[in-house]
Amino acid sequence: MTPAQRARLEIREKRHTGSTRGLAPGYVQCNLAVVPQALAFDFLLYCQRNARACPVLEVCDPGSPEPRQLAPGADLRTDLPKYCVYEKGRGREAADIRGLWRKDLVAFLIGSGITFDAALERAGVPTDRHRWVLNSRIPTVPAGRLRGDMVVTMRWLTPGQAIVATQVSSRFPYNHGAPIHIGDPSAIGADLAQPLFGGAVPALPKGMVPVFWACGVTPQQAALASGIEFMIAHAPAHGFVTDLEADKFCIP
Amino acid sequence: MTPAQRARLEIREKRHTGSTRGLAPGYVQCNLAVVPQALAFDFLLYCQRNARACPVLEVCDPGSPEPRQLAPGADLRTDLPKYCVYEKGRGREAADIRGLWRKDLVAFLIGSGITFDAALERAGVPTDRHRWVLNSRIPTVPAGRLRGDMVVTMRWLTPGQAIVATQVSSRFPYNHGAPIHIGDPSAIGADLAQPLFGGAVPALPKGMVPVFWACGVTPQQAALASGIEFMIAHAPAHGFVTDLEADKFCIP
Repeated sequence: MTPAQRARLEIREKRHTGSTRGLAPGYVQCNLAVVPQALAFDFLLYCQRNARACPVLEVCDPGSPEPRQLAPGADLRTDLPKYCVYEKGRGREAADIRGLWRKDLVAFLIGSGITFDAALERAGVPTDRHRWVLNSRIPTVPAGRLRGDMVVTMRWLTPGQAIVATQVSSRFPYNHGAPIHIGDPSAIGADLAQPLFGGAVPALPKGMVPVFWACGVTPQQAALASGIEFMIAHAPAHGFVTDLEADKFCIP
Repeated sequence: MTPAQRARLEIREKRHTGSTRGLAPGYVQCNLAVVPQALAFDFLLYCQRNARACPVLEVCDPGSPEPRQLAPGADLRTDLPKYCVYEKGRGREAADIRGLWRKDLVAFLIGSGITFDAALERAGVPTDRHRWVLNSRIPTVPAGRLRGDMVVTMRWLTPGQAIVATQVSSRFPYNHGAPIHIGDPSAIGADLAQPLFGGAVPALPKGMVPVFWACGVTPQQAALASGIEFMIAHAPAHGFVTDLEADKFCIP
Protein backbone atom coordinates (compact mmCIF):
# COMPACT_ATOMS: atom_id res chain seq x y z
CA MET A 1 0.00 0.00 0.00
CA THR A 2 1.42 3.40 -0.96
CA PRO A 3 1.41 6.36 1.46
CA ALA A 4 -1.36 7.89 -0.70
CA GLN A 5 -3.55 4.78 -0.49
CA ARG A 6 -2.92 4.52 3.26
CA ALA A 7 -3.90 8.17 3.75
CA ARG A 8 -7.17 7.72 1.84
CA LEU A 9 -7.99 4.57 3.83
CA GLU A 10 -7.41 6.37 7.15
CA ILE A 11 -9.70 9.15 5.99
CA ARG A 12 -12.37 6.74 4.75
CA GLU A 13 -12.33 4.92 8.10
CA LYS A 14 -12.56 8.25 9.96
CA ARG A 15 -9.20 7.67 11.61
CA HIS A 16 -7.95 10.93 10.05
CA THR A 17 -10.45 13.79 10.20
CA GLY A 18 -8.18 16.85 10.16
CA SER A 19 -6.35 18.82 7.48
CA THR A 20 -4.55 16.91 4.75
CA ARG A 21 -1.54 19.21 4.97
CA GLY A 22 1.51 17.09 5.69
CA LEU A 23 -0.36 13.90 4.84
CA ALA A 24 1.36 11.60 2.31
CA PRO A 25 3.95 14.22 1.37
CA GLY A 26 5.10 14.09 -2.26
CA TYR A 27 1.69 13.10 -3.65
CA VAL A 28 -0.45 15.49 -5.67
CA GLN A 29 -3.36 16.74 -3.56
CA CYS A 30 -6.54 18.06 -5.10
CA ASN A 31 -9.36 20.34 -4.16
CA LEU A 32 -12.87 19.14 -4.90
CA ALA A 33 -15.87 20.75 -6.58
CA VAL A 34 -19.02 18.81 -7.42
CA VAL A 35 -21.83 20.43 -9.41
CA PRO A 36 -25.01 19.24 -11.16
CA GLN A 37 -24.49 18.18 -14.77
CA ALA A 38 -26.57 21.15 -15.97
CA LEU A 39 -23.86 23.45 -14.61
CA ALA A 40 -20.89 21.32 -15.66
CA PHE A 41 -19.98 23.16 -18.87
CA ASP A 42 -20.19 26.57 -17.20
CA PHE A 43 -18.06 25.26 -14.37
CA LEU A 44 -15.40 23.71 -16.63
CA LEU A 45 -15.32 26.94 -18.64
CA TYR A 46 -14.97 28.98 -15.41
CA CYS A 47 -11.99 26.81 -14.48
CA GLN A 48 -10.44 27.20 -17.95
CA ARG A 49 -10.79 30.99 -17.77
CA ASN A 50 -9.31 31.05 -14.27
CA ALA A 51 -6.79 28.26 -14.59
CA ARG A 52 -4.33 29.81 -12.14
CA ALA A 53 -6.85 29.34 -9.34
CA CYS A 54 -8.70 26.33 -10.79
CA PRO A 55 -6.34 23.99 -12.68
CA VAL A 56 -8.61 21.01 -13.45
CA LEU A 57 -6.74 17.71 -13.11
CA GLU A 58 -9.69 15.35 -13.60
CA VAL A 59 -13.39 15.43 -14.36
CA CYS A 60 -15.31 12.32 -13.35
CA ASP A 61 -18.08 10.90 -15.49
CA PRO A 62 -21.56 12.14 -14.49
CA GLY A 63 -22.76 10.31 -11.37
CA SER A 64 -19.39 8.67 -10.71
CA PRO A 65 -17.51 9.46 -7.48
CA GLU A 66 -14.41 7.58 -8.71
CA PRO A 67 -11.45 9.55 -10.11
CA ARG A 68 -10.34 6.80 -12.45
CA GLN A 69 -7.25 8.59 -13.71
CA LEU A 70 -5.82 10.06 -10.50
CA ALA A 71 -6.83 7.41 -7.97
CA PRO A 72 -8.63 4.34 -9.36
CA GLY A 73 -10.78 2.71 -6.70
CA ALA A 74 -11.08 5.84 -4.58
CA ASP A 75 -14.47 7.31 -3.65
CA LEU A 76 -14.79 11.09 -3.48
CA ARG A 77 -17.86 10.73 -1.21
CA THR A 78 -15.80 9.21 1.62
CA ASP A 79 -12.12 9.90 0.95
CA LEU A 80 -11.89 13.54 2.01
CA PRO A 81 -11.83 14.36 5.73
CA LYS A 82 -14.26 17.29 5.56
CA TYR A 83 -16.57 18.91 3.02
CA CYS A 84 -18.41 22.18 2.43
CA VAL A 85 -21.90 22.02 0.99
CA TYR A 86 -23.33 25.07 -0.82
CA GLU A 87 -27.05 25.43 -1.41
CA LYS A 88 -28.52 28.54 -3.02
CA GLY A 89 -25.56 30.70 -2.04
CA ARG A 90 -25.23 29.46 1.55
CA GLY A 91 -22.49 27.17 2.76
CA ARG A 92 -22.12 24.71 5.63
CA GLU A 93 -19.49 22.17 6.65
CA ALA A 94 -20.21 18.46 6.48
CA ALA A 95 -18.23 15.41 7.62
CA ASP A 96 -20.17 13.07 5.37
CA ILE A 97 -21.81 13.61 1.98
CA ARG A 98 -22.93 10.10 1.06
CA GLY A 99 -26.58 11.02 1.58
CA LEU A 100 -26.25 14.02 -0.75
CA TRP A 101 -24.88 12.16 -3.76
CA ARG A 102 -27.00 12.18 -6.93
CA LYS A 103 -26.76 10.56 -10.35
CA ASP A 104 -26.49 13.93 -12.08
CA LEU A 105 -23.46 15.17 -10.14
CA VAL A 106 -20.13 15.81 -11.88
CA ALA A 107 -16.97 15.87 -9.72
CA PHE A 108 -14.00 18.08 -10.58
CA LEU A 109 -10.56 17.63 -9.02
CA ILE A 110 -8.53 20.82 -8.96
CA GLY A 111 -4.80 21.11 -8.26
CA SER A 112 -3.76 22.22 -4.76
CA GLY A 113 -0.79 24.16 -3.42
CA ILE A 114 -0.29 21.46 -0.77
CA THR A 115 1.14 19.45 -3.68
CA PHE A 116 4.41 21.40 -3.68
CA ASP A 117 4.90 21.43 0.11
CA ALA A 118 7.34 18.50 -0.08
CA ALA A 119 9.38 20.28 -2.77
CA LEU A 120 9.39 23.46 -0.65
CA GLU A 121 10.59 21.54 2.41
CA ARG A 122 13.40 19.95 0.41
CA ALA A 123 14.47 23.43 -0.68
CA GLY A 124 14.47 24.73 2.92
CA VAL A 125 11.11 26.53 3.03
CA PRO A 126 9.05 25.47 6.07
CA THR A 127 5.43 24.59 5.30
CA ASP A 128 4.05 23.49 8.66
CA ARG A 129 2.76 26.88 9.89
CA HIS A 130 1.82 30.46 9.00
CA ARG A 131 -0.67 29.77 6.25
CA TRP A 132 -4.11 31.24 5.67
CA VAL A 133 -6.87 31.00 3.10
CA LEU A 134 -8.23 34.49 2.43
CA ASN A 135 -10.70 36.31 0.24
CA SER A 136 -9.21 38.89 -2.13
CA ARG A 137 -10.68 41.53 -4.41
CA ILE A 138 -9.01 40.17 -7.56
CA PRO A 139 -11.97 39.55 -9.89
CA THR A 140 -12.12 36.24 -11.73
CA VAL A 141 -13.23 35.99 -15.38
CA PRO A 142 -16.94 35.05 -15.37
CA ALA A 143 -18.30 32.04 -17.24
CA GLY A 144 -22.01 31.41 -17.59
CA ARG A 145 -23.55 31.96 -14.16
CA LEU A 146 -20.25 31.74 -12.30
CA ARG A 147 -18.40 34.81 -11.11
CA GLY A 148 -16.66 36.06 -7.99
CA ASP A 149 -13.36 37.16 -6.51
CA MET A 150 -10.26 34.99 -6.28
CA VAL A 151 -9.49 33.20 -3.04
CA VAL A 152 -5.80 33.26 -2.13
CA THR A 153 -3.47 31.27 0.10
CA MET A 154 -1.06 33.40 2.12
CA ARG A 155 2.14 32.36 3.82
CA TRP A 156 4.65 34.68 5.41
CA LEU A 157 8.25 33.92 4.67
CA THR A 158 11.69 35.50 4.96
CA PRO A 159 12.73 37.32 1.77
CA GLY A 160 15.13 34.47 0.96
CA GLN A 161 12.42 31.87 1.48
CA ALA A 162 10.02 33.94 -0.64
CA ILE A 163 12.49 33.83 -3.53
CA VAL A 164 13.01 30.07 -3.22
CA ALA A 165 9.26 29.50 -2.83
CA THR A 166 8.68 31.45 -6.06
CA GLN A 167 11.26 29.37 -7.89
CA VAL A 168 9.95 26.04 -6.61
CA SER A 169 6.22 26.71 -7.03
CA SER A 170 6.78 28.00 -10.59
CA ARG A 171 7.61 24.40 -11.48
CA PHE A 172 4.08 23.29 -10.50
CA PRO A 173 1.82 25.05 -13.03
CA TYR A 174 -0.92 22.40 -12.59
CA ASN A 175 -1.08 23.15 -8.86
CA HIS A 176 -1.44 26.97 -8.95
CA GLY A 177 2.20 27.59 -9.93
CA ALA A 178 4.06 30.76 -8.94
CA PRO A 179 2.73 33.31 -6.42
CA ILE A 180 0.27 35.86 -7.76
CA HIS A 181 1.42 38.60 -5.35
CA ILE A 182 4.17 39.38 -2.85
CA GLY A 183 3.96 42.08 -0.16
CA ASP A 184 1.16 44.51 0.77
CA PRO A 185 -2.08 42.52 1.27
CA SER A 186 -4.21 45.62 0.61
CA ALA A 187 -2.90 45.82 -2.96
CA ILE A 188 -5.05 42.79 -3.80
CA GLY A 189 -7.76 43.50 -1.23
CA ALA A 190 -6.84 40.42 0.80
CA ASP A 191 -9.24 40.20 3.73
CA LEU A 192 -6.99 39.54 6.72
CA ALA A 193 -9.81 40.20 9.17
CA GLN A 194 -11.82 37.13 8.22
CA PRO A 195 -9.72 34.25 6.91
CA LEU A 196 -11.67 31.39 5.41
CA PHE A 197 -9.42 28.95 7.25
CA GLY A 198 -6.65 29.17 9.82
CA GLY A 199 -7.74 31.70 12.45
CA ALA A 200 -7.46 35.52 12.40
CA VAL A 201 -4.21 36.81 10.91
CA PRO A 202 -1.96 38.36 13.60
CA ALA A 203 0.45 41.25 12.99
CA LEU A 204 3.17 40.41 10.51
CA PRO A 205 6.45 39.53 12.27
CA LYS A 206 9.30 41.94 11.50
CA GLY A 207 11.36 40.91 8.50
CA MET A 208 8.75 38.56 7.06
CA VAL A 209 7.07 39.00 3.64
CA PRO A 210 3.50 37.89 2.87
CA VAL A 211 3.42 35.68 -0.24
CA PHE A 212 0.10 34.95 -1.97
CA TRP A 213 -0.90 32.09 -4.25
CA ALA A 214 -4.15 31.57 -6.19
CA CYS A 215 -6.25 29.06 -4.27
CA GLY A 216 -8.53 26.16 -5.22
CA VAL A 217 -11.16 27.42 -2.78
CA THR A 218 -12.01 30.03 -5.45
CA PRO A 219 -14.94 27.94 -6.87
CA GLN A 220 -16.55 27.99 -3.42
CA GLN A 221 -16.40 31.78 -3.41
CA ALA A 222 -18.01 31.65 -6.87
CA ALA A 223 -20.76 29.35 -5.54
CA LEU A 224 -21.53 31.91 -2.83
CA ALA A 225 -21.24 34.97 -5.09
CA SER A 226 -23.31 33.40 -7.86
CA GLY A 227 -25.98 31.86 -5.62
CA ILE A 228 -25.81 28.58 -7.52
CA GLU A 229 -28.27 26.02 -6.26
CA PHE A 230 -25.93 23.18 -5.31
CA MET A 231 -22.21 22.49 -4.98
CA ILE A 232 -20.21 20.11 -2.83
CA ALA A 233 -16.57 21.04 -2.18
CA HIS A 234 -13.68 20.12 0.08
CA ALA A 235 -13.30 22.07 3.30
CA PRO A 236 -10.28 24.40 2.97
CA ALA A 237 -7.01 22.45 3.45
CA HIS A 238 -8.96 19.19 3.71
CA GLY A 239 -8.12 17.89 0.26
CA PHE A 240 -8.02 14.67 -1.72
CA VAL A 241 -4.76 12.70 -1.87
CA THR A 242 -4.19 11.27 -5.37
CA ASP A 243 -1.90 8.45 -6.50
CA LEU A 244 0.06 10.89 -8.68
CA GLU A 245 3.58 11.69 -7.51
CA ALA A 246 4.20 15.44 -7.43
CA ASP A 247 7.74 15.16 -8.79
CA LYS A 248 6.39 13.38 -11.86
CA PHE A 249 3.77 16.03 -12.51
CA CYS A 250 5.78 19.23 -12.63
CA ILE A 251 8.44 21.00 -14.67
CA PRO A 252 11.68 19.27 -13.61
CA MET B 1 0.28 48.33 -34.58
CA THR B 2 2.07 45.34 -33.03
CA PRO B 3 3.63 42.57 -35.15
CA ALA B 4 0.75 40.31 -34.06
CA GLN B 5 -1.91 42.81 -35.18
CA ARG B 6 -0.08 43.37 -38.46
CA ALA B 7 0.10 39.61 -39.11
CA ARG B 8 -3.64 39.19 -38.51
CA LEU B 9 -4.43 42.11 -40.81
CA GLU B 10 -2.30 40.66 -43.59
CA ILE B 11 -4.10 37.35 -43.20
CA ARG B 12 -7.53 38.98 -43.11
CA GLU B 13 -6.75 40.90 -46.30
CA LYS B 14 -5.48 37.68 -47.96
CA ARG B 15 -2.01 39.15 -48.35
CA HIS B 16 -0.64 36.25 -46.29
CA THR B 17 -2.15 32.86 -47.18
CA GLY B 18 0.65 30.45 -46.21
CA SER B 19 1.82 28.87 -42.96
CA THR B 20 2.00 31.05 -39.86
CA ARG B 21 5.38 29.56 -38.88
CA GLY B 22 7.86 32.38 -38.56
CA LEU B 23 5.07 34.98 -38.59
CA ALA B 24 5.16 37.51 -35.71
CA PRO B 25 7.82 35.56 -33.80
CA GLY B 26 7.52 35.81 -30.01
CA TYR B 27 3.72 35.87 -29.96
CA VAL B 28 1.64 32.95 -28.73
CA GLN B 29 0.07 31.13 -31.67
CA CYS B 30 -3.03 29.00 -31.31
CA ASN B 31 -4.68 26.14 -33.09
CA LEU B 32 -8.41 26.41 -33.69
CA ALA B 33 -11.30 24.05 -33.13
CA VAL B 34 -14.93 25.12 -33.56
CA VAL B 35 -17.77 22.77 -32.62
CA PRO B 36 -21.55 23.08 -32.19
CA GLN B 37 -22.62 24.06 -28.69
CA ALA B 38 -24.20 20.63 -28.17
CA LEU B 39 -20.72 19.11 -28.37
CA ALA B 40 -18.93 21.87 -26.42
CA PHE B 41 -18.81 20.15 -23.01
CA ASP B 42 -17.56 16.87 -24.49
CA PHE B 43 -14.96 18.80 -26.44
CA LEU B 44 -13.75 20.83 -23.45
CA LEU B 45 -13.59 17.62 -21.40
CA TYR B 46 -11.64 15.90 -24.19
CA CYS B 47 -9.15 18.76 -24.10
CA GLN B 48 -8.89 18.60 -20.29
CA ARG B 49 -8.22 14.86 -20.41
CA ASN B 50 -5.61 15.31 -23.14
CA ALA B 51 -4.13 18.63 -22.07
CA ARG B 52 -0.66 17.84 -23.40
CA ALA B 53 -2.06 17.81 -26.95
CA CYS B 54 -4.97 20.21 -26.38
CA PRO B 55 -4.10 22.95 -23.88
CA VAL B 56 -7.14 25.26 -24.11
CA LEU B 57 -6.15 28.92 -23.92
CA GLU B 58 -9.54 30.48 -24.62
CA VAL B 59 -13.13 29.45 -25.23
CA CYS B 60 -15.26 32.05 -27.00
CA ASP B 61 -18.87 32.67 -26.06
CA PRO B 62 -21.35 30.65 -28.18
CA GLY B 63 -21.77 32.27 -31.60
CA SER B 64 -18.89 34.70 -31.09
CA PRO B 65 -15.86 34.53 -33.40
CA GLU B 66 -13.96 37.07 -31.24
CA PRO B 67 -11.31 35.81 -28.79
CA ARG B 68 -11.81 38.64 -26.32
CA GLN B 69 -9.03 37.61 -23.96
CA LEU B 70 -6.24 36.68 -26.38
CA ALA B 71 -6.91 39.12 -29.24
CA PRO B 72 -9.76 41.59 -28.72
CA GLY B 73 -11.15 42.77 -32.05
CA ALA B 74 -9.91 39.74 -33.98
CA ASP B 75 -12.27 37.54 -35.98
CA LEU B 76 -11.59 33.81 -36.09
CA ARG B 77 -13.63 33.52 -39.32
CA THR B 78 -11.14 35.61 -41.29
CA ASP B 79 -7.89 35.82 -39.32
CA LEU B 80 -6.41 32.39 -40.06
CA PRO B 81 -4.83 31.76 -43.49
CA LYS B 82 -6.38 28.32 -44.06
CA TYR B 83 -8.97 26.09 -42.42
CA CYS B 84 -10.03 22.45 -42.37
CA VAL B 85 -13.75 21.67 -42.29
CA TYR B 86 -14.92 18.29 -40.97
CA GLU B 87 -18.40 17.02 -41.73
CA LYS B 88 -19.54 13.55 -40.61
CA GLY B 89 -16.00 12.23 -40.37
CA ARG B 90 -14.74 13.68 -43.65
CA GLY B 91 -12.37 16.64 -43.91
CA ARG B 92 -11.62 19.24 -46.55
CA GLU B 93 -9.51 22.38 -46.70
CA ALA B 94 -11.12 25.80 -46.97
CA ALA B 95 -9.69 29.27 -47.47
CA ASP B 96 -12.80 30.97 -46.16
CA ILE B 97 -15.35 29.89 -43.55
CA ARG B 98 -17.56 32.99 -43.29
CA GLY B 99 -20.43 31.21 -45.03
CA LEU B 100 -20.25 28.30 -42.59
CA TRP B 101 -20.54 30.29 -39.37
CA ARG B 102 -23.56 29.62 -37.17
CA LYS B 103 -24.94 31.09 -33.97
CA ASP B 104 -24.50 27.81 -32.09
CA LEU B 105 -20.76 27.45 -32.78
CA VAL B 106 -18.24 27.56 -29.94
CA ALA B 107 -14.61 28.36 -30.82
CA PHE B 108 -11.69 26.92 -28.85
CA LEU B 109 -8.15 28.26 -29.11
CA ILE B 110 -5.51 25.66 -28.27
CA GLY B 111 -1.82 26.34 -27.58
CA SER B 112 0.63 25.66 -30.45
CA GLY B 113 4.26 24.58 -30.54
CA ILE B 114 4.98 27.43 -32.97
CA THR B 115 4.75 29.59 -29.83
CA PHE B 116 8.18 28.51 -28.59
CA ASP B 117 9.97 28.76 -31.95
CA ALA B 118 11.39 32.17 -31.05
CA ALA B 119 12.72 30.84 -27.74
CA LEU B 120 14.26 27.84 -29.55
CA GLU B 121 15.95 30.13 -32.07
CA ARG B 122 17.39 32.28 -29.28
CA ALA B 123 18.82 29.10 -27.73
CA GLY B 124 20.42 28.02 -31.01
CA VAL B 125 17.85 25.48 -32.23
CA PRO B 126 16.83 26.14 -35.86
CA THR B 127 13.07 26.05 -36.47
CA ASP B 128 12.76 26.94 -40.14
CA ARG B 129 12.84 23.41 -41.58
CA HIS B 130 12.54 19.65 -40.90
CA ARG B 131 9.15 19.60 -39.26
CA TRP B 132 6.20 17.29 -39.91
CA VAL B 133 2.75 16.74 -38.49
CA LEU B 134 2.13 13.01 -38.17
CA ASN B 135 -0.43 10.53 -36.92
CA SER B 136 0.70 8.30 -34.06
CA ARG B 137 -0.81 5.27 -32.32
CA ILE B 138 -0.73 6.87 -28.87
CA PRO B 139 -4.38 6.64 -27.78
CA THR B 140 -5.98 9.73 -26.26
CA VAL B 141 -8.34 9.53 -23.28
CA PRO B 142 -11.91 9.55 -24.65
CA ALA B 143 -14.55 12.05 -23.52
CA GLY B 144 -18.17 11.72 -24.55
CA ARG B 145 -18.22 10.97 -28.27
CA LEU B 146 -14.62 12.07 -28.83
CA ARG B 147 -11.77 9.59 -29.13
CA GLY B 148 -8.79 8.94 -31.39
CA ASP B 149 -5.02 8.77 -31.52
CA MET B 150 -2.66 11.64 -30.74
CA VAL B 151 -1.26 13.72 -33.57
CA VAL B 152 2.40 14.60 -33.10
CA THR B 153 4.81 17.18 -34.44
CA MET B 154 8.23 15.79 -35.39
CA ARG B 155 11.47 17.65 -35.88
CA TRP B 156 14.86 16.08 -36.37
CA LEU B 157 17.66 17.68 -34.45
CA THR B 158 21.24 17.00 -33.42
CA PRO B 159 21.49 15.36 -29.98
CA GLY B 160 22.69 18.66 -28.50
CA GLN B 161 19.78 20.54 -30.07
CA ALA B 162 17.38 17.85 -28.84
CA ILE B 163 18.54 18.44 -25.28
CA VAL B 164 18.21 22.22 -25.55
CA ALA B 165 14.82 21.88 -27.26
CA THR B 166 13.62 19.70 -24.38
CA GLN B 167 14.80 22.28 -21.85
CA VAL B 168 13.27 25.23 -23.66
CA SER B 169 9.92 23.65 -24.56
CA SER B 170 9.46 22.38 -20.97
CA ARG B 171 9.01 26.02 -20.01
CA PHE B 172 5.91 26.30 -22.23
CA PRO B 173 3.39 23.92 -20.61
CA TYR B 174 0.45 25.83 -22.11
CA ASN B 175 1.80 25.23 -25.62
CA HIS B 176 2.39 21.44 -25.48
CA GLY B 177 5.48 21.69 -23.25
CA ALA B 178 8.29 19.12 -23.37
CA PRO B 179 8.59 16.43 -26.06
CA ILE B 180 6.53 13.28 -25.58
CA HIS B 181 9.09 11.03 -27.30
CA ILE B 182 12.65 11.04 -28.61
CA GLY B 183 14.08 8.52 -31.07
CA ASP B 184 12.47 5.53 -32.82
CA PRO B 185 9.24 6.67 -34.55
CA SER B 186 7.85 3.12 -34.55
CA ALA B 187 7.80 3.09 -30.73
CA ILE B 188 4.81 5.47 -30.85
CA GLY B 189 3.45 4.24 -34.17
CA ALA B 190 4.25 7.53 -35.88
CA ASP B 191 3.08 7.27 -39.47
CA LEU B 192 6.00 8.61 -41.49
CA ALA B 193 4.51 7.39 -44.75
CA GLN B 194 1.61 9.82 -44.75
CA PRO B 195 2.34 13.06 -42.89
CA LEU B 196 -0.66 15.30 -42.31
CA PHE B 197 1.43 18.29 -43.35
CA GLY B 198 4.89 18.88 -44.74
CA GLY B 199 5.43 16.28 -47.47
CA ALA B 200 6.60 12.65 -47.15
CA VAL B 201 9.33 12.12 -44.55
CA PRO B 202 12.69 11.31 -46.20
CA ALA B 203 15.36 9.06 -44.65
CA LEU B 204 16.75 10.42 -41.38
CA PRO B 205 20.11 12.15 -41.91
CA LYS B 206 23.00 10.48 -40.09
CA GLY B 207 23.52 11.84 -36.57
CA MET B 208 20.09 13.40 -36.25
CA VAL B 209 17.48 12.42 -33.66
CA PRO B 210 13.71 12.59 -34.24
CA VAL B 211 11.99 14.57 -31.49
CA PHE B 212 8.19 14.39 -31.08
CA TRP B 213 5.78 16.81 -29.43
CA ALA B 214 2.04 16.45 -28.81
CA CYS B 215 0.21 18.45 -31.48
CA GLY B 216 -2.89 20.65 -31.53
CA VAL B 217 -4.09 18.91 -34.68
CA THR B 218 -5.17 16.04 -32.37
CA PRO B 219 -8.81 17.29 -32.20
CA GLN B 220 -9.02 16.99 -35.99
CA GLN B 221 -7.97 13.35 -35.76
CA ALA B 222 -10.68 12.94 -33.12
CA ALA B 223 -13.24 14.57 -35.44
CA LEU B 224 -12.36 12.02 -38.12
CA ALA B 225 -12.16 9.02 -35.79
CA SER B 226 -15.40 9.90 -34.01
CA GLY B 227 -17.37 10.84 -37.11
CA ILE B 228 -18.69 13.99 -35.42
CA GLU B 229 -21.08 15.91 -37.59
CA PHE B 230 -19.32 19.29 -37.79
CA MET B 231 -16.03 20.89 -36.79
CA ILE B 232 -14.03 23.76 -38.21
CA ALA B 233 -10.30 23.80 -37.47
CA HIS B 234 -7.12 25.51 -38.60
CA ALA B 235 -5.15 23.83 -41.38
CA PRO B 236 -1.97 22.30 -39.89
CA ALA B 237 0.67 25.01 -39.25
CA HIS B 238 -1.80 27.70 -40.34
CA GLY B 239 -2.58 29.02 -36.88
CA PHE B 240 -3.98 32.08 -35.15
CA VAL B 241 -1.57 34.77 -33.94
CA THR B 242 -2.65 36.13 -30.53
CA ASP B 243 -1.68 39.38 -28.80
CA LEU B 244 -0.08 37.40 -25.96
CA GLU B 245 3.70 37.54 -25.76
CA ALA B 246 5.19 34.05 -25.44
CA ASP B 247 7.84 35.13 -22.92
CA LYS B 248 5.09 36.40 -20.61
CA PHE B 249 3.14 33.15 -20.80
CA CYS B 250 5.70 30.53 -19.83
CA ILE B 251 7.80 29.37 -16.90
CA PRO B 252 10.69 31.88 -16.82
